[in-house]
Amino acid sequence: MAEAAYAALQDRFRRIGALRDAEAMLHWDLATMMPKGGAQARGDQLAVLKALRHGLLVSGETDEGLRAASEDRTLSPWERANVREMSRQWAHAVALSETQVEALSQAATSCESAWREARADNDYPRVLPHLTRLLELVREAAQAKAERLGLSPYDALLDEYEPDGRSADIDVLFAELASFLPDFLPRVLERQARAGKPTEPVGPFPIEAQRAAALSLMEALGFDFHHGRLDVSLHPFCGGTPDDIRITTRYDETDFRSALMGVLHETGHALYERGLPPEWRGQPVGDARGMALHESQSLLIEMQVCRSQAFLDYAAPVLRHALSGSGPAWDAQNLYRHYIRVEPGFIRVDADEVTYPAHVILRYDLERAMIAGDLMPADLPGAWSDGLHRLLGLRPADDRHGCLQDIHWFDGAWGYFPTYTLGAMAAAQIYAAALEAEPRIPDEISRGEFATLLGWLRRHLHARASFCSTRDLLIDATGTPLRTEPFRMHLQRRYLGN
Amino acid sequence: MAEAAYAALQDRFRRIGALRDAEAMLHWDLATMMPKGGAQARGDQLAVLKALRHGLLVSGETDEGLRAASEDRTLSPWERANVREMSRQWAHAVALSETQVEALSQAATSCESAWREARADNDYPRVLPHLTRLLELVREAAQAKAERLGLSPYDALLDEYEPDGRSADIDVLFAELASFLPDFLPRVLERQARAGKPTEPVGPFPIEAQRAAALSLMEALGFDFHHGRLDVSLHPFCGGTPDDIRITTRYDETDFRSALMGVLHETGHALYERGLPPEWRGQPVGDARGMALHESQSLLIEMQVCRSQAFLDYAAPVLRHALSGSGPAWDAQNLYRHYIRVEPGFIRVDADEVTYPAHVILRYDLERAMIAGDLMPADLPGAWSDGLHRLLGLRPADDRHGCLQDIHWFDGAWGYFPTYTLGAMAAAQIYAAALEAEPRIPDEISRGEFATLLGWLRRHLHARASFCSTRDLLIDATGTPLRTEPFRMHLQRRYLGN
Repeated sequence: MAEAAYAALQDRFRRIGALRDAEAMLHWDLATMMPKGGAQARGDQLAVLKALRHGLLVSGETDEGLRAASEDRTLSPWERANVREMSRQWAHAVALSETQVEALSQAATSCESAWREARADNDYPRVLPHLTRLLELVREAAQAKAERLGLSPYDALLDEYEPDGRSADIDVLFAELASFLPDFLPRVLERQARAGKPTEPVGPFPIEAQRAAALSLMEALGFDFHHGRLDVSLHPFCGGTPDDIRITTRYDETDFRSALMGVLHETGHALYERGLPPEWRGQPVGDARGMALHESQSLLIEMQVCRSQAFLDYAAPVLRHALSGSGPAWDAQNLYRHYIRVEPGFIRVDADEVTYPAHVILRYDLERAMIAGDLMPADLPGAWSDGLHRLLGLRPADDRHGCLQDIHWFDGAWGYFPTYTLGAMAAAQIYAAALEAEPRIPDEISRGEFATLLGWLRRHLHARASFCSTRDLLIDATGTPLRTEPFRMHLQRRYLGN
Repeated sequence: MAEAAYAALQDRFRRIGALRDAEAMLHWDLATMMPKGGAQARGDQLAVLKALRHGLLVSGETDEGLRAASEDRTLSPWERANVREMSRQWAHAVALSETQVEALSQAATSCESAWREARADNDYPRVLPHLTRLLELVREAAQAKAERLGLSPYDALLDEYEPDGRSADIDVLFAELASFLPDFLPRVLERQARAGKPTEPVGPFPIEAQRAAALSLMEALGFDFHHGRLDVSLHPFCGGTPDDIRITTRYDETDFRSALMGVLHETGHALYERGLPPEWRGQPVGDARGMALHESQSLLIEMQVCRSQAFLDYAAPVLRHALSGSGPAWDAQNLYRHYIRVEPGFIRVDADEVTYPAHVILRYDLERAMIAGDLMPADLPGAWSDGLHRLLGLRPADDRHGCLQDIHWFDGAWGYFPTYTLGAMAAAQIYAAALEAEPRIPDEISRGEFATLLGWLRRHLHARASFCSTRDLLIDATGTPLRTEPFRMHLQRRYLGN
């Protein structure tokens, strides 16, 4: 009986996984290919798929199956972990009614479309009614989940992106960073000013040439083009499924640096997805382990690896060749100085790794206030401006450079932002552990060889998927739970040379 | 009660429609964007969506709802027609057991992949066991549907592609064509030989230039790029949904003619989909009315409009400009002669409109014999060769140019082929009616204006969707049911000048 229960659950979650994968592909298409007029129909499709998936998940049979399977003593450790992850998904799903899920999905799709136009035209009022409606539904969902999971409404949202993530823990870590950065940042800026500006590579840089350079570096890093592709979208992301990974970027013909590093960042996400264990495809235990670890993999590739002197020793000639560059601007040392340039600015995705945490802390504070009902969407532009001024001494000139810049809230992703900085910290901690285990990694990187690093990541993180918690994965891979120290040490070493 | 039944049915079919639309988008992606390594995962996604859709359709609630709604006297005529179309879909679905559906799907998948190899290697014996097995299952399904629908097995298959289509009617029409063509074709070839060959436009024709020309003509014809796009795939098709139409083509840099006309053909399909009534989106009555009418809309645009002298008077300068052509090869009269060139050949998709019916009649005869059990797949190559020889005086040198050329049978699509020629006949009949109602259409076409024609098609066909039968649609739009005469007159006028 119990064995049959597990087999039936596995089949049910296989179907749930296939629906989620179908949704992922339709999302990718929405962001990269879909003509604008398809938005309504796409919203209907996604809402129906999501509702069916939700229905499969919350069905009484799932509940009964989970009870029976939890008593099955014949299960392997991975199967037991699979049941644990199934239960986690079930608990999140069962908190919401099918009507709620469908309404949330439709509101998110229409809000996201309105955001695309509002951002292009710097017209926050256009998206405001959509955001207000969406936030209302998100707050209802947070309340419902809070009651079922025994968490605060914000933690109930966070838990979906970062399983077992709690704002009480995040507050401690973010407070350490917040006390470190105000002293650290001026010293970095001062040191940088003394060194003078790096030389500018002069464009234009045709999109096709940028794309060719990006593809070449992706391939070197280990991106598998038999199972993935690179396209263009307004907001770069890594989508699709482990066997069909779709990463995107956006190009600027006057400056190749941001699109290129964006591609390498998404490649980090893609390598994680592609390294998930194929024998657990479609099962909850085979999924990536939360967004903090996902971001740690993109930031490990971007910040730890690709913005290093060693990587640029390898990449500078590749870029010079692909982009027809010449002169001292293309020296590895000069490109490295570009890529570690610190400059407080308005845009999170363009931020350097020193000021990035401030962007995240701003959003973390604002979204907690909005979920708590202490901040209304109508007041968001002002609160944003005040918060950024407090953290970085800047005020955005318009909403496009302020609260309209990110897709997350407009797409229904609330409780997601802190995972970026948790990921940055985890990346530093994981990379330090990898270097300790395999000291030849930097030398290999300077020759464009990434197999040792990728192999270590695959063994210690990717292949373990959701077998255990983020905390236990980090302890097994690095010796300790998440700490701020490796990240602080990394920043001090890179930006102050000590 | 009955009113609630209709509302519940409408909601159920809205979900069924959204699933089908999601499948359509995933199919488009599979053919245009997907990396090869994504095939297995995509297959899983499509199978799960299809099974869920089938489950929603054959559920006991559908049956009960249909019974109750059929007694609802408050329904509007369109709602009653919607219930009729729902019942039609339900009857087709419920005739087959879940096991049968699954076996058919699996057999079709493995037969199709064997066919791809067999076709590439010209190796019919390799696909023969797969085809034999698939035909066995198709014949069982035909028998099951025949019993439920009260039709012959072949008509039961045909009915899914062409609702209310019956082979008794097709036999009469095809016999008329078959007696017309053997006398007509030699006269066309003789006249053509006397006129000599048209001048060849000399390439290469860069893909981007071909694409620009195609986009310009699509737009002139009325293709709505706010709700659609043009891409590349190995086999051109029109996919997507009415609000997000995806047409594809494949380019040949040495010859622009085939890709261009392919785009215009698919544009005809797209205009039909786009003209379906938005207030019935996702409901069965709002769907296109069968494959014969669908093909009539693509062939009306391709054969009646775009291969006309009037259209080429308008298009020749557009093409000359986009493709940087010069000289007499680019005169409208010369391009027209290219586009109406007749040449008996082996390959259906390359055939001109004069010899095309022979290709369809051959397949129609052969598939009926196979469904009836009178022809075994082992004997297909010989029967094909004999049939083509009888119809066009040609014998294919190998099976790649014979029975291996089309995907349909190997993919499980039996009863589909006749709709191509029914569509060609309907196109001629519909276009003649449009010209009678709006005699200024050819003049407008020669100026690149298509609004009068499109408006007429929208009112008389597109906007009526599946409100009534193909037969009634044709009677309302043209005064009579489908006849061969307008098609024969069209061929005589175009190819013999009388």
